[in-house]
Amino acid sequence: MSGTVAGAPEVGYDLPAVVGMSEAEIETPCLVIDLDAFEGNLRQMGEFCAGMGVKLRAHGKMHKSADIARRQIEIGGATGICCQKASEAEAFARGGITDILVTNQVRSPRMIDRLARLAGEVSLGVCVDDLDNVAELSSAAVRHGSEISVLVEIDCGAGRCGVEPGAPAVELARAAEDAAGLRFSGIQAYHGAAQHVRDFADRKARIEAAIDLARKTRDAILAAGLACPTVTGAGTGSYMFEGSSGVYTELQCGSYAFMDADYQKVRDAGGAPISEFRNAFFLLTSIMSTAKPGQAVCDAGLKVQSIDSGLPVIFGRDDIEYVNCSDEHGVIRDPGNTLAASEKLRLVPGHCDPTCNIHDWYVGIRDGKVECLWPVTARGKAY
Amino acid sequence: MSGTVAGAPEVGYDLPAVVGMSEAEIETPCLVIDLDAFEGNLRQMGEFCAGMGVKLRAHGKMHKSADIARRQIEIGGATGICCQKASEAEAFARGGITDILVTNQVRSPRMIDRLARLAGEVSLGVCVDDLDNVAELSSAAVRHGSEISVLVEIDCGAGRCGVEPGAPAVELARAAEDAAGLRFSGIQAYHGAAQHVRDFADRKARIEAAIDLARKTRDAILAAGLACPTVTGAGTGSYMFEGSSGVYTELQCGSYAFMDADYQKVRDAGGAPISEFRNAFFLLTSIMSTAKPGQAVCDAGLKVQSIDSGLPVIFGRDDIEYVNCSDEHGVIRDPGNTLAASEKLRLVPGHCDPTCNIHDWYVGIRDGKVECLWPVTARGKAY
Repeated sequence: MSGTVAGAPEVGYDLPAVVGMSEAEIETPCLVIDLDAFEGNLRQMGEFCAGMGVKLRAHGKMHKSADIARRQIEIGGATGICCQKASEAEAFARGGITDILVTNQVRSPRMIDRLARLAGEVSLGVCVDDLDNVAELSSAAVRHGSEISVLVEIDCGAGRCGVEPGAPAVELARAAEDAAGLRFSGIQAYHGAAQHVRDFADRKARIEAAIDLARKTRDAILAAGLACPTVTGAGTGSYMFEGSSGVYTELQCGSYAFMDADYQKVRDAGGAPISEFRNAFFLLTSIMSTAKPGQAVCDAGLKVQSIDSGLPVIFGRDDIEYVNCSDEHGVIRDPGNTLAASEKLRLVPGHCDPTCNIHDWYVGIRDGKVECLWPVTARGKAY
Repeated sequence: MSGTVAGAPEVGYDLPAVVGMSEAEIETPCLVIDLDAFEGNLRQMGEFCAGMGVKLRAHGKMHKSADIARRQIEIGGATGICCQKASEAEAFARGGITDILVTNQVRSPRMIDRLARLAGEVSLGVCVDDLDNVAELSSAAVRHGSEISVLVEIDCGAGRCGVEPGAPAVELARAAEDAAGLRFSGIQAYHGAAQHVRDFADRKARIEAAIDLARKTRDAILAAGLACPTVTGAGTGSYMFEGSSGVYTELQCGSYAFMDADYQKVRDAGGAPISEFRNAFFLLTSIMSTAKPGQAVCDAGLKVQSIDSGLPVIFGRDDIEYVNCSDEHGVIRDPGNTLAASEKLRLVPGHCDPTCNIHDWYVGIRDGKVECLWPVTARGKAY
């Protein structure tokens, strides 16, 4: 079944676009990627990591796309991918990714079993912060005859998961090292809460404290006679600190590939927005009503974006503002009555990760034309 | 491919549960429905509408499930379903719903074409607030040899879509009546912004103003010599006002079937939470980390719920509180350290509509056992 509108290109029934059509012809609301900006972001991060001698394990939880993960590896120098859920890891593995770290705890017996099975097919790691979980993972790996790489997660400031740095981490590391079917690989030390701290000096201070905790924990593990080949963590707001620390061996940045409106509020040392990465990710929307003077209503509401980090910004337009949001509508203040029905706008969503997770497709754009459609491979994979 | 964990029932690869398992065995995070509470809510609204002599056109945008829509018709006395998008209407039609109103504008040429095609298969209506759109719909209906029912949307206070009440609505009604392939059916007058107003008297006053605008517009249309068989609108926060108005012929309530944490903040005339509908809808979550004293971390974060209307409430537990949210985690304050790894909790999400739209499945529970799995038929149908 496909559309058959006079003058409009045919598209598949549940597809937003076909290759070759212009951006103006895409069905909205729809996620679009500026491929030039996206590839530039991948290269930029790849060059930074190469220069610092650290690995890049790009975070797939942000985009949930095997196509994007492959490009992070092929274009952007990533040595592997990380994600947050066992079912995401399965989706990436099915999409051809062979080195995957689940940067999170997996506690469900069913999902531990699936993770252990997957470890027989790809290089697979997972984080732990509990001795019982070490035993659960070991038992599953033995059952499947596989080996799971285990990282001990420490709480380095975020106050979420993770054991206290130092002795509790050493105890877990020892248990993982001793457990059949597991291989202790190092420390997960991600300070998520610090990524979006606006002020550079404040952000730097928090991350330096995290780096110090990671260093001390690594040294305690080494002093206990264990190897600790990997110290992994960092994100788009802090990668420069962990990357140059001499402690972290691997960075887990995700948002750098797309960027979002919240990350544009994060400042560099000079007080300017982070400028090394460009907006490559947009929510394309169309105007659906201009019935009221001074405003227009667009088709992008709560069902196509997450506003947990604020409303979207309208890209390239300072004269109009997205001011309100309901389930299927966005209200745009348009004092000059510049907008017309069916006109399209690019929105920069407030927070890319949960926005991507709502959609089925990315539409890649270059020079104003659709170049590719990529499925959101792991959309909804929450187990 | 299915799970094969010793002691745990097998489930399909991407399914959260199988019929007959206990609630504690469901894979999380997962949407669950208390079927007794749900069916009670359907009957309650059905009885109200029957008593008032108004039709119920239950809003499918909330749940996006053809299975639920069918039950709203069969158990809850609904005469049809409404939704917000042409692609949602298609999904409901494929699921067996034969009377569908799109309570929104459809402006994309491709989706107008699909809507007109669908109107050849089911009884289909759509709202307009622009003369050009009347012409677009007419042209598509003629092309497909179908008839589309058209309602003129008026802005009765929400300040979003819709023409001004009175003369502008009459002009549009006349255009729809005169257009080939269209049938003018009445007025869409929904005051969405008033639904969640906490105070009863304030909410009542806003809705009475909306009812007055709907009445005047209907009378102006009748005075112009047109019939106006339908005046439709209302929601779970205001249905008692429109339902007893003598003006509205049809109510569009949606959330009543599930309820959410925000609607529990809406007060009745006595200052108590609305009590005629019970919480039937939950986000089942599991504890994944108890590494820090005084808190636990659960597996329900931003990727399985929308927090636009606030954080979720933990059902039946006053001693613990969901206090923070990130992409894949929820932090629960647990001063008594009562929670254990893998323990399950029912969350009442802040806002049901955008939360449902993220998920693929509802798991229906009765007497602690899984009775059914219903797909979220129109999940992601945003066109």
